[in-house]
Amino acid sequence: MPVACDRRTFVMGLAAALVSAARLERARSAPSVYDLRIDALRLQHSLEELSTFGRPVGGSFADGVSRVAYSDADVAGRRYVLGLLRAAGLEPKIDAAGNIQAVRGGSVPSLKPIAFGSHIDSVPNGGNFDGDLGSLAAIEVVQTLQDHAIRTRHPLEVTIWSNEEGGPFGSQIAIEGPRATDLERTFNGTPMREGMARIGGDSAQLDSARLAPGSILCYLELHIEQGGNLEKAGAPIGVVDGIVSIDEYTVEIRGVANHAGTTPMPERHNALLAAAKLIEAVQEEVTRFPGRQVGTVGQLTVTPNAPNVIPGFVSHTIEFRDLSESTLSRLGTAIRERATQIARETGTEITIKQVVHDPPAMATAEIQRQIEAAAAALGLRTLHLPSGAGHDAQFLAKIAPMGMIFVPSVGGISHSPKELTRWSDCANGANVLLQTVLRVDAA
Amino acid sequence: MPVACDRRTFVMGLAAALVSAARLERARSAPSVYDLRIDALRLQHSLEELSTFGRPVGGSFADGVSRVAYSDADVAGRRYVLGLLRAAGLEPKIDAAGNIQAVRGGSVPSLKPIAFGSHIDSVPNGGNFDGDLGSLAAIEVVQTLQDHAIRTRHPLEVTIWSNEEGGPFGSQIAIEGPRATDLERTFNGTPMREGMARIGGDSAQLDSARLAPGSILCYLELHIEQGGNLEKAGAPIGVVDGIVSIDEYTVEIRGVANHAGTTPMPERHNALLAAAKLIEAVQEEVTRFPGRQVGTVGQLTVTPNAPNVIPGFVSHTIEFRDLSESTLSRLGTAIRERATQIARETGTEITIKQVVHDPPAMATAEIQRQIEAAAAALGLRTLHLPSGAGHDAQFLAKIAPMGMIFVPSVGGISHSPKELTRWSDCANGANVLLQTVLRVDAA
Repeated sequence: MPVACDRRTFVMGLAAALVSAARLERARSAPSVYDLRIDALRLQHSLEELSTFGRPVGGSFADGVSRVAYSDADVAGRRYVLGLLRAAGLEPKIDAAGNIQAVRGGSVPSLKPIAFGSHIDSVPNGGNFDGDLGSLAAIEVVQTLQDHAIRTRHPLEVTIWSNEEGGPFGSQIAIEGPRATDLERTFNGTPMREGMARIGGDSAQLDSARLAPGSILCYLELHIEQGGNLEKAGAPIGVVDGIVSIDEYTVEIRGVANHAGTTPMPERHNALLAAAKLIEAVQEEVTRFPGRQVGTVGQLTVTPNAPNVIPGFVSHTIEFRDLSESTLSRLGTAIRERATQIARETGTEITIKQVVHDPPAMATAEIQRQIEAAAAALGLRTLHLPSGAGHDAQFLAKIAPMGMIFVPSVGGISHSPKELTRWSDCANGANVLLQTVLRVDAA
Repeated sequence: MPVACDRRTFVMGLAAALVSAARLERARSAPSVYDLRIDALRLQHSLEELSTFGRPVGGSFADGVSRVAYSDADVAGRRYVLGLLRAAGLEPKIDAAGNIQAVRGGSVPSLKPIAFGSHIDSVPNGGNFDGDLGSLAAIEVVQTLQDHAIRTRHPLEVTIWSNEEGGPFGSQIAIEGPRATDLERTFNGTPMREGMARIGGDSAQLDSARLAPGSILCYLELHIEQGGNLEKAGAPIGVVDGIVSIDEYTVEIRGVANHAGTTPMPERHNALLAAAKLIEAVQEEVTRFPGRQVGTVGQLTVTPNAPNVIPGFVSHTIEFRDLSESTLSRLGTAIRERATQIARETGTEITIKQVVHDPPAMATAEIQRQIEAAAAALGLRTLHLPSGAGHDAQFLAKIAPMGMIFVPSVGGISHSPKELTRWSDCANGANVLLQTVLRVDAA
């Protein structure tokens, strides 16, 4: 019976809340735990040290980094990170997918571990914060607890995921196993299997890298926003609602290549003119209704691509992202309708094929509340926002409650040497991570 | 005094017309001259023979030709043409630019030669009619006169211009001399000077290839239309009004490359969206008023060109063509205004630079009338039209009266293996060329 059921739920929730509040009160009575702060200068120093692995020759921190997965720079950066983990009293291991994992034991052995981490591989000509901040802040959290001899109830599991920028790849293998096609491809000039071997993995044993559903209490990840929302709102901490769903399409437009001087305007079948109309249609459909949905034509090639030839063939991508899959589906339908109309207007043939559908990965409401509470206790204002970029956390969300903490990116810039998060924001993010871990541990 | 002057002009014109009519009558009394027809089967045969030089391996006539200037196929095709000229009783010479020239003496040694010809080099993967028809028809005209032992009053000068598709290059050197930069560049992988040497030219002696203004009576060229106007109008013969003027621009659009997932729509500076609007603006401005003007964005590149990155930079061409330079200038002004507005709308920076201005080359009215008369006498309907494509004739127009005869291209297709002009249309064109030569000779 619904009414009785609702009452029971309410009573159980109330009981849980009272227990939780009592624990929190106990924890608060130990000022050392809730007043605990990470060492901001040590975090800055480790970020600066890590930036030297993959730094352009003769460059400085501001010149960014190329630490592409499986490269010499990646191998060197990982060695540095292993050293930091050992210095924090841990014994890191490398799984078959090349993910670095280190567990710090808890005081209650039966409890599941609280997992957190990020990645240290970069895009070519990338910046020094994407992935690096979340990874080194995770190690800084453990080092801080070690420094203060604080033992959590739950074990803590720090993971530095391998090859995030090329997939995410390491986290996908841990949660879903590899896609057969992925293992056979090359990445950055290196066959995948060989790449994994270079960083201590073993592509023949990938099953051993799998994390079972429910094997961890939750997964937390601190990351730079890679967008301008926090900076614009003046909020130092972002609480991620979820990681957006992505629909990607490839579009092929067939016209007729012909002489640009001798073919009258009404007789043209101009594939690039059709593409231009479709690019505008993407912009119009995405901005037609309120919301945070985005749509992008990022890749486009013209054939034969000569000044004096009417383009006979154009292929391009369309990518839509939003937390809501139904919004994406609505955009997909709208753009197909627009394409039909544009093909008719321009005398071309347009085919649209969906090549990617990544479902959204929602952050767990309870984890979001713990992040908010941690930030509030630190006096830091928060903003709720979706993550438009993909992260390792999107795979972890499939097996455990997930939460992400964002910090501002200056100018919203990322995947660029200009990527920048102020040291004070880095420290704020690491402190929110530390305090969220402690709150989840106490809850 | 203007009135006296006008009267004198009128009287002189009347006298010239009477002399001309008397000559025509004399000529008409010799039925062999005005009833003369080229040998259509021989012309077809020579076009088929020439098509084998540069034919794809294992292919047929329908597979088109790659007889790019200076290639082995070009050298072999030229050898074939030299043979045809010799068979027609001529002694061909090769000038320093590689142009093949052969003169057939006239009965009045003091008269200037009537020049006609075309080219036999092709674009890569081109067809068997562009240039080939005009070249082989020119030789067929001379062969026909030779067969019937008919001597014209004026000398006849057949020229097969070198490297038309790469310039026009041979005709430009003959009329204007080479551009310094042209000699130092490579064409189709071959340094220009070496290419000219391969076909019997000598880049150190290019001055010797120059044709002085007024050194020929006129220049005639038969060519396929390379467009669909004649076919559409059902007219077998086109009388070219002139070769259009070309204005070419390069456009550079600077936006900001950023993450396609994390950058909200209102904060984007999307260079490809700006390009799309400009491509549509070109179409709108060109079709805004009646006329035969055309405008094309044929070449476009996107940077960085990845599905998940907002395009930060786009460069593309804009090409306008029309007989009227003032129309082109008006289009240039209009597109700059539209670009300013689009840059403002999209938050991008757009720079437009003019890189080509080719003036129009008008066909001489008197030559157009002779072509019309020749076609009318053959019972062939004519259509006046501009040439949207460039031809060797555009350079010859700078030193002598010029006229061009067009024949239909099936489907308006050229620069393609699908290029096709029906054998009957080839024969019609060659007969109009023959009869125009005879009429100009008699005038």
